Amino acid sequence: MELKIGDQFFSYKHVTEQDVELFADISGDHNPLHMDAEFASTTMFKQRIVHGMLTASLISTALASMPGTIILTNIYLSFEKPVYIGDNLIAKVTIRKIENSKLYLDAEVTKGTDRVLSGNVKILKR
Amino acid sequence: MELKIGDQFFSYKHVTEQDVELFADISGDHNPLHMDAEFASTTMFKQRIVHGMLTASLISTALASMPGTIILTNIYLSFEKPVYIGDNLIAKVTIRKIENSKLYLDAEVTKGTDRVLSGNVKILKR
Repeated sequence: MELKIGDQFFSYKHVTEQDVELFADISGDHNPLHMDAEFASTTMFKQRIVHGMLTASLISTALASMPGTIILTNIYLSFEKPVYIGDNLIAKVTIRKIENSKLYLDAEVTKGTDRVLSGNVKILKR
Repeated sequence: MELKIGDQFFSYKHVTEQDVELFADISGDHNPLHMDAEFASTTMFKQRIVHGMLTASLISTALASMPGTIILTNIYLSFEKPVYIGDNLIAKVTIRKIENSKLYLDAEVTKGTDRVLSGNVKILKR
């Protein structure tokens, strides 16, 4: 399959409490903002928020759905809105530029009509 | 505790096969480069590599060890070398600039003397 500018790839995720707890165990990030409902209720978010890097991982999952072997080399991410347990997320990557084996893509994650994360990535295609 | 330029925070991780499998389940990224030893042996890496976003999550874990409530708003990452199952990783963040509640930090992850990931982050401190 020939990739071209404008091609889009997606991944989808319903975030559960178990996801957040497993992610905390893997990463070691037990920040009470993610883990402690009582503490989180005292913050600007009013409830536990999902680890930003868990949301970000959906970008690489969308990249992994591209044909061929994809190697992520650079990523820039702006976390725009909080993600909560129970949210349904859609990650989308769009090819912006192709230079031989280097591809540049725009990336975003949305929940409903809200964009929660935006950014861009550079990958190598083998 | 007053934060100042040059302050450093760390996180540490021994990456196991189980970590990679749980991360694949959470993120949905079952790329054979991460999951299939036989396929991975045919690539430039010669063996399964750890999800880049798992390595990246150690940056936010280091940030979570800072005093107070830290909110990650922007991150730029360059993946420089592959990470393999069994590697011992050290993530380090160093405060580079402080503007009221906004902090800018340099970030890196190393294994032994090799840097596998470098970048920078912007956080809000509450």
